[in-house]
Amino acid sequence: MAIAAKAEAERNEKGIATAIERLASRFGDRLQTGHAQREQHGHTTTYIPTQAPDAVFFPETQEEVQEAVRICAENQVPIIPFGAGSSLEGHVNAPQGGVCFDMSHMNRVLSVNQEDLDCTVEPGITREELNHYLRDSGLFFPIDPGANASIGGMASTRASGTNAVRYGTMRENVLSLTAVMPDGRLVTTARRARKSSAGYDLTRLLVGSEGTLGVITSVTLRLHGIPQAISGGVCPFPTVEAACNAVIMTIQMGIPIARIELVNALGMRAINTYSKFDYPESPCLFLEFHGTESGVAEQAETFGEVAEEFSGGPFSWARAAEERQKLWKARHDFYWAGFTLRPGTKALATDVCVPISRLAECIIETEADIEESGLVAPIVGHVGDGNFHVTVLMDMEDPEEIARAEAFVSGLNKRALSMEGTCTGEHGIGQGKMRYLREEHGDGVDLMRSIKQALDPFNIMNPGKILGPALD
Amino acid sequence: MAIAAKAEAERNEKGIATAIERLASRFGDRLQTGHAQREQHGHTTTYIPTQAPDAVFFPETQEEVQEAVRICAENQVPIIPFGAGSSLEGHVNAPQGGVCFDMSHMNRVLSVNQEDLDCTVEPGITREELNHYLRDSGLFFPIDPGANASIGGMASTRASGTNAVRYGTMRENVLSLTAVMPDGRLVTTARRARKSSAGYDLTRLLVGSEGTLGVITSVTLRLHGIPQAISGGVCPFPTVEAACNAVIMTIQMGIPIARIELVNALGMRAINTYSKFDYPESPCLFLEFHGTESGVAEQAETFGEVAEEFSGGPFSWARAAEERQKLWKARHDFYWAGFTLRPGTKALATDVCVPISRLAECIIETEADIEESGLVAPIVGHVGDGNFHVTVLMDMEDPEEIARAEAFVSGLNKRALSMEGTCTGEHGIGQGKMRYLREEHGDGVDLMRSIKQALDPFNIMNPGKILGPALD
Repeated sequence: MAIAAKAEAERNEKGIATAIERLASRFGDRLQTGHAQREQHGHTTTYIPTQAPDAVFFPETQEEVQEAVRICAENQVPIIPFGAGSSLEGHVNAPQGGVCFDMSHMNRVLSVNQEDLDCTVEPGITREELNHYLRDSGLFFPIDPGANASIGGMASTRASGTNAVRYGTMRENVLSLTAVMPDGRLVTTARRARKSSAGYDLTRLLVGSEGTLGVITSVTLRLHGIPQAISGGVCPFPTVEAACNAVIMTIQMGIPIARIELVNALGMRAINTYSKFDYPESPCLFLEFHGTESGVAEQAETFGEVAEEFSGGPFSWARAAEERQKLWKARHDFYWAGFTLRPGTKALATDVCVPISRLAECIIETEADIEESGLVAPIVGHVGDGNFHVTVLMDMEDPEEIARAEAFVSGLNKRALSMEGTCTGEHGIGQGKMRYLREEHGDGVDLMRSIKQALDPFNIMNPGKILGPALD
Repeated sequence: MAIAAKAEAERNEKGIATAIERLASRFGDRLQTGHAQREQHGHTTTYIPTQAPDAVFFPETQEEVQEAVRICAENQVPIIPFGAGSSLEGHVNAPQGGVCFDMSHMNRVLSVNQEDLDCTVEPGITREELNHYLRDSGLFFPIDPGANASIGGMASTRASGTNAVRYGTMRENVLSLTAVMPDGRLVTTARRARKSSAGYDLTRLLVGSEGTLGVITSVTLRLHGIPQAISGGVCPFPTVEAACNAVIMTIQMGIPIARIELVNALGMRAINTYSKFDYPESPCLFLEFHGTESGVAEQAETFGEVAEEFSGGPFSWARAAEERQKLWKARHDFYWAGFTLRPGTKALATDVCVPISRLAECIIETEADIEESGLVAPIVGHVGDGNFHVTVLMDMEDPEEIARAEAFVSGLNKRALSMEGTCTGEHGIGQGKMRYLREEHGDGVDLMRSIKQALDPFNIMNPGKILGPALD
C-alpha cells in the first residue's frame, strides 16, 4: 500500500545532475536545491511519506517552462508540476527525484471576457485569488474544493467540491488550456468557443491527467454570474439514510440546488468543537440555494417539503452573508476540525463516489466498518454527486493502526467499486489510489498506458503517478 | 476541397475479399454486399459524393462486434461505424472501402436508473426512440440535434443542438460508454458515478472521435426530469445584431433558458413557406423556457425586458403543447425548408461556433459574404452557444457555383477561426473539415495523430476522417 514508503524507483543520477547544472546556470536563484525548499515541495497535505524532488524551479513565463522542459527532456529527468500543494494522494512526490516546477510565480489573470463569461489565467493563481480579482465584475468562478488550491492543480486533478452539483467540475468548467508537452512543444487544446466538434477532446484529456502528460501554462475557465439571491443553512436528519433519501429526492425533483453537503454525526461534533457552533450532533445537510429572490424562496420551500418527508429539521437558516460565510468556512475547515477528535494525529483524507441511489447504503456500511475497525474517522460528502470523504485520524507511529487504516481504505474503495462507483470522485489517483485503477477501468488502463507512452515516451512527466509501478 | 470527389485512397483488395468471405460465412445475410445496400450506406445527408463501403454488417450483440472487428483487424480492413446516416461531413463514406458496421439492430434500452437519472442504451437507438421509451418515467434525454440521429452517432460526433445551452452537449451528457477497440478488446470508459478523478478521461476521448478509435457498443447517458412547466414562442428583431445582443444579455443575466435559436430573415421565409407560418420575415429568436410555473413566468418576463431593450417583439407565444410542437418541428425541418428557396438543389449544411461576443459580427459578415457571392444560403443558429449553421442551396451540376460555394465555406471557417472560434460546433470534422483542423489546433493535431496511431496502429477505424490525408 502506498501509505508505506515505497522503495525508491531508479534514479537517473547523471541526468539529474546535468539538468540541474544547466537550469541553475540559466535561471539563477529561481532554481532552488536547498533542503528546506525540496522538503517543502514534497511535504503536502497527503498522508503518503515525503519523496522530495532534487530541485525546485520557479518559472515566470511559458517560454521559460518550455526551455526548462527541453533541458529536462534532453536529460530524461522527471518533471513534477506543483500548484498549491493541497493534493491528497502524493501527486507532488518525486519517487524518482527530478525537478519540481512550482507554478506559483505564474499567477496572473491574462484576460477576462465579460460578455463570454470566461477568463484565461496562469496556472499558479489560486481559486480565492481569482475570485478576489473578479469581485467587481459580477462574475465568479464556482469550483470550490475546500482548499485554496491553484487553478492548474485543480485542472490537473479534475477537482470539484461543494457546488459541483450545480456548476459542474473542472471537466465542465475548463474551456481550453495551454500546456508544454514532454518534447517542449506548446499546445493549446481548444478555441474559446463554448463548444466544438473539431477533433479529439484534448482539453478533457489533459484535465485530470495529474501532470503526467504535460505542464499546464494557462487555463481558460467558464465563469458564472453571481446569483441575485443566495440563501442556505443547515438541516439535521435522524439518520444518514434519511438525509441521503432527501438528497435523492431533491436531485430527482430538479431543484437546482447549488450546494448540498452531508456531514455525519461524528463530523458535526468536530465542526461544533472547531468552529464553535452548536448544531445537533446528528447527520446534517449543509445547503445553499442560488437564483432570483423568488426562485430561491421557491427552492427552499420545496426542499423544506422534501426534508419534512424524511423527518428532517428544524432548518437553521443562515440568512445574512456573514452567517453564510461562517457556515461554509466551517465546512471548508472540516479537514482541520477533524483533528479536534484526536489531537496529535495525522489525517488520511480519502474519497469515493457512487451512483446516488447507492449512496445511503455505501455510507451506512462505511460507518459500520469504521465502528468495527475502531478508527476515528468522520465523514463528509458532496452528496448531490454521490461523492463522500472519510478522514481517518491516524497515529502514524503505530504500525498496527496503520494496517487497520489501510484495510479500511481498501475496503471502502472495493465497496464503492462494487456499487458501480469510482475509487476517487475528485482527489485523483496520484500514488495512493493506483492499486484500484485496474479494478475500476479494466483494459481501459492499457488504453491510458498507450496514450501516456505515445505522448511521453521517456516517462518524464510526473512519473510514478496514475500509471506508476504500484499499479499492477 | 472535400466537395470534389477525391482520388480513391489505396484499397487493400485482398484483405477486403478475405474479410468479407469470413464475415459472410459467419454472419450469413447479416453481411450484405449488394449494390443498393452499399450505396445507401454511403449516401447520407452529406454534400460530399458517396464513397460506398464494400459490405454492410448488421451486428446484434457486442460480442458479434468484437468478432467482426477481429476479422477486419486480422485483414487490415477498414471499419466504418454507421448510426442513422444523418451526419453532414462525409463521416460514413468509405474512401478506402471496407465494412460498414450498421448498428441499427443494436437499439435496445439496457437499463434505466430512475433514482440516478441515467440510462444505458445500445448505440443504434435514436434519440426519438429513447424519449418514446422514457415517456412514462418523468425523465427525458435532452440532446436534440434536429435529425433523429442515433445515440451512438451523436456520441461519435459530439452532437448538441437546440437545448445544449441549458443541458449541455454529448460531452456533458455521456457518463460512460463501451467500445470495441481496433484489436477487438472491449473497453468501458467509466463507472456510473456522476464524476470521477480516476485516470485519463477515456469517455471524453471517445466522444467526438467519429468512429476513428473504436466501435461504440453501449452508451450510458444522463437523463433529466421533464420540467414542470414549459413555455416558448418566437420573437422578431429588427436586425441580426439586435437579436444577438439580446442573446448575450440573456446569457449574461443567467436566465436558464432551455432553447434560444436564431433564424435569419431568409431562413424565416423558408420556414414560413415550408411549415405554413406567417411570422415576420426578419431575424427571429425561437425560445423555450423550462422550470416551475412561476420560474418559467419569471424567465419569460425577464427575457421580455431584454428583448424590449433591443427593439425586439412582439413576442408570439406558443402556449399549448401542440403549438410548441409545431413550432419546433418547423425549426427542425429547417434543412428541408431550405429547398423551398431553390427547388431541385442540394444542401451543403455547414456549421461554425464562436465566442458569443463575436457572434453578431460573425453572422453579419457571413450574410454580407452570401449576398456578395450570389449564393442562396439561409442561416440558423444555436446562438446561446455561439453556434450557427449556413445551408447553401447548390446546383451540384454547376462547377462554377460549386467553386463559389467552396470559397464561401472556406471564408466562413477562416472567419470563425479568426474570432477564436471553431470550424465546427457540432457537426464534426469527417472528411469535409479536415483542411481547417491544422489552423484550429496547430500542434494539437500531432497529439491527436499520436493518440490515433497508438490506439489504432493499422488505421482500420474509419480511416480518412478527422486525421485523414486531406488534412495537410
